[in-house]
Amino acid sequence: MSNEKIPYKIYLEESEMPKAWYNLRADMKNKPAALLNPQTLKPMTAQELSGVFCDELVKQELDDTTPYFEIPDEIKKFYKMYRPSPLVRAYCLEEKLQTPAKIYYKFEGNNTSGSHKLNSAIAQAYYAKEQGLVGVTTETGAGQWGTALSMACSYFGLDCKVYMVKVSYEQKPFRREVMRTYGASVTPSPSMETEVGRKILAEHPGTTGSLGCAISEAVETAVKNKGYRYVLGSVLNQVLLHQSIIGLETKTALDKYGIKADIIIGCAGGGSNLGGLISPFMGEKLRGEADYRIIAVEPASCPSFTRGKFAYDYCDTGMVCPLAKMYTLGSGFIPSANHAGGLRYHGMSSVLSQLYHDKLMEAVSVAQTDVFEAAVQFARVEGILPAPESAHAIRVAIDEAMKCKETGEEKTIVFGLTGTGYFDMVAYQKYNDGQMTDYIPTDEEIQANFDKLPRVDV
Amino acid sequence: MSNEKIPYKIYLEESEMPKAWYNLRADMKNKPAALLNPQTLKPMTAQELSGVFCDELVKQELDDTTPYFEIPDEIKKFYKMYRPSPLVRAYCLEEKLQTPAKIYYKFEGNNTSGSHKLNSAIAQAYYAKEQGLVGVTTETGAGQWGTALSMACSYFGLDCKVYMVKVSYEQKPFRREVMRTYGASVTPSPSMETEVGRKILAEHPGTTGSLGCAISEAVETAVKNKGYRYVLGSVLNQVLLHQSIIGLETKTALDKYGIKADIIIGCAGGGSNLGGLISPFMGEKLRGEADYRIIAVEPASCPSFTRGKFAYDYCDTGMVCPLAKMYTLGSGFIPSANHAGGLRYHGMSSVLSQLYHDKLMEAVSVAQTDVFEAAVQFARVEGILPAPESAHAIRVAIDEAMKCKETGEEKTIVFGLTGTGYFDMVAYQKYNDGQMTDYIPTDEEIQANFDKLPRVDV
Repeated sequence: MSNEKIPYKIYLEESEMPKAWYNLRADMKNKPAALLNPQTLKPMTAQELSGVFCDELVKQELDDTTPYFEIPDEIKKFYKMYRPSPLVRAYCLEEKLQTPAKIYYKFEGNNTSGSHKLNSAIAQAYYAKEQGLVGVTTETGAGQWGTALSMACSYFGLDCKVYMVKVSYEQKPFRREVMRTYGASVTPSPSMETEVGRKILAEHPGTTGSLGCAISEAVETAVKNKGYRYVLGSVLNQVLLHQSIIGLETKTALDKYGIKADIIIGCAGGGSNLGGLISPFMGEKLRGEADYRIIAVEPASCPSFTRGKFAYDYCDTGMVCPLAKMYTLGSGFIPSANHAGGLRYHGMSSVLSQLYHDKLMEAVSVAQTDVFEAAVQFARVEGILPAPESAHAIRVAIDEAMKCKETGEEKTIVFGLTGTGYFDMVAYQKYNDGQMTDYIPTDEEIQANFDKLPRVDV
Repeated sequence: MSNEKIPYKIYLEESEMPKAWYNLRADMKNKPAALLNPQTLKPMTAQELSGVFCDELVKQELDDTTPYFEIPDEIKKFYKMYRPSPLVRAYCLEEKLQTPAKIYYKFEGNNTSGSHKLNSAIAQAYYAKEQGLVGVTTETGAGQWGTALSMACSYFGLDCKVYMVKVSYEQKPFRREVMRTYGASVTPSPSMETEVGRKILAEHPGTTGSLGCAISEAVETAVKNKGYRYVLGSVLNQVLLHQSIIGLETKTALDKYGIKADIIIGCAGGGSNLGGLISPFMGEKLRGEADYRIIAVEPASCPSFTRGKFAYDYCDTGMVCPLAKMYTLGSGFIPSANHAGGLRYHGMSSVLSQLYHDKLMEAVSVAQTDVFEAAVQFARVEGILPAPESAHAIRVAIDEAMKCKETGEEKTIVFGLTGTGYFDMVAYQKYNDGQMTDYIPTDEEIQANFDKLPRVDV
């Protein structure tokens, strides 16, 4: 089909929506490494994991051979409330850049959680409800995951306890209020509510918190309260499985119009969006059916892919969670306080880490002032104010489109626009006032955390 | 077509999108009364109006016979960035309410301005650009209109000066930041920047401002600066014309699935959303082709339809604008400070006022705690956090659906969900904390402003 026929926004029909999630691990030759018990350093069993996670989610976490998991009807119903999300042809951005590149973005921000996080939140809440649980606990950084989980729990009548990284809690008071509107309780982390929180506060009294620390608090609360389990919005295999809906819809929409992507770009914190977006494309690549350039974009202030080590590490600061093999900056790593957006996790999904290690994808890091420059440029021509996280992908999409302008190549670029920036206006204000700064960790700072990596011989 | 086939969200194809705006006035037997010159009290001529408004918009303002105005290509292109907006079947709300009613809402919040206001903002900015102007001035209350205009001006490279009602400016700091991100300047009103602002501040030093006052400041600034014109986001005939796209899309979507609406509900401040939503339906009603119950919903704290007078009044506090015949609470009316949302204008569109006067539509007023109760109920089942303005329509849609539950009638209810509440979290917080109060003006307060209405014999 000719490009002129392609609408600004491609919406799939309900009947075209994916009926199953795609499990990328099934097609990986080198499987992601197993989670390890932090005490014994042996692979976690399903039974051990079921103390922390819902039973059905444990199955999804451990299954690296089943290619498709049917989406339960209740979840499909909820998906219909805010999905399919549009695949947008960025005609206005292309015109502004005067590039021969064809730019598409999959926009996941048109729901109240403001991001793609709802795709996994509703799945995790569903399985918790099915198991007859009272509620779930979690952490949130920028607040998108916490909001998404609050919405999902409210839909299923589950209690929802959110530990929010303190610096985000203070920068984003209204995020907390959205979560409360959906009936969740929100606690700034580290807090005095948990043993691990009290310990961290005693050791680092002025800390602004980290995702790793909030995870520890949420896990402790889940384990100590009957009828609760812990849920996580990124990093885990199960999350990437649920988020595959992003990529599946994108692929169906592209196929519908006969479009072949050349470059696929996604921002990467723990990997939930990137892993979801790329999954069917990476699947084709793994099966030798097609080739794509796949680019992960991360903040220069939290560069796990580009400056981290591929090693077993703790997933949390309190070291209560299983160990995962991943690109990591060390579980003690905390991004500098001037880092404005999300993407602040010290590690990276084991699936994506393995794929990156196997050179099946690339990674670049970008400074936040460059990211906000791209965000504002995009907002003004495409009419969407992006989340700072999403703007990492915009930055590199624009960079790649400008390379096409130099070479004259008509490449097709697809990127993930994960969410909106309506709750990030403190950061935008800093940028608008010319007061935003960049911070790139020194080699010494990075090395200091490497020295504390656990010694695991596997 | 059977109801079971109706998807959760109906999106029109690009080819089905309206190519012309519909001018409801062409089908009105009793035309809305003419605007009057505030000095001479004679009908405003096109020439007089062109000092304040763009030439093409003056034509649209005065034309009450041409039924359709073709939408210029540049505007259609911009519309494609964020339109068509979905017509959503509220399956989840219906299930929650256990009502036999079929509820649909036209959701206009999926764009960065967060509301339907962008539909007219882009049109007004386009005509300003076409006329070779430098920029435009405007007022904003809740901030949706100012944000929309900032986006539109940024798209066409126009300067944009926004006077924001002081109470909103203080309640919504992040709204200002979105406007600044789009390159607009934002001034809390009343300000010391204009003569009229200084006069109002001298008379009412502690005032939290009003739309009427911000309008006066914006008009003064437009008239005193070469290459500027004033634009307005509601009330005017031209705005209702542009907003007809809401109703036209809604009607096309309903017709596509063979659905006949019984009740159409919209919130009403100045009338921009309501006038746009109902226009093709009211057109059928005026031409005797179909009948609908049409309900305007307004805040009990600013009840222009239900407690106002149908009379000529000033459109602004400073009395620099033309006079309009409308349902009005008097140009000196200011909603009590505890009023949280928009819909705070003292008057109502002349078109809607005439239709209401001719008993072609109904109006009800609702208290804000009841409105927020409906907002939270809706958010939890439909997954969209509504703007307080929009929640007025939700309140009455729920009330009507519950009446259907009592009677067993399967009525089809369509309401306008004008926008999202992401910048209204201060108000939600008050509600969540149980600290939101209602204020209903006393008869004496209402009467006091009536006594100051201008004496016009027309």
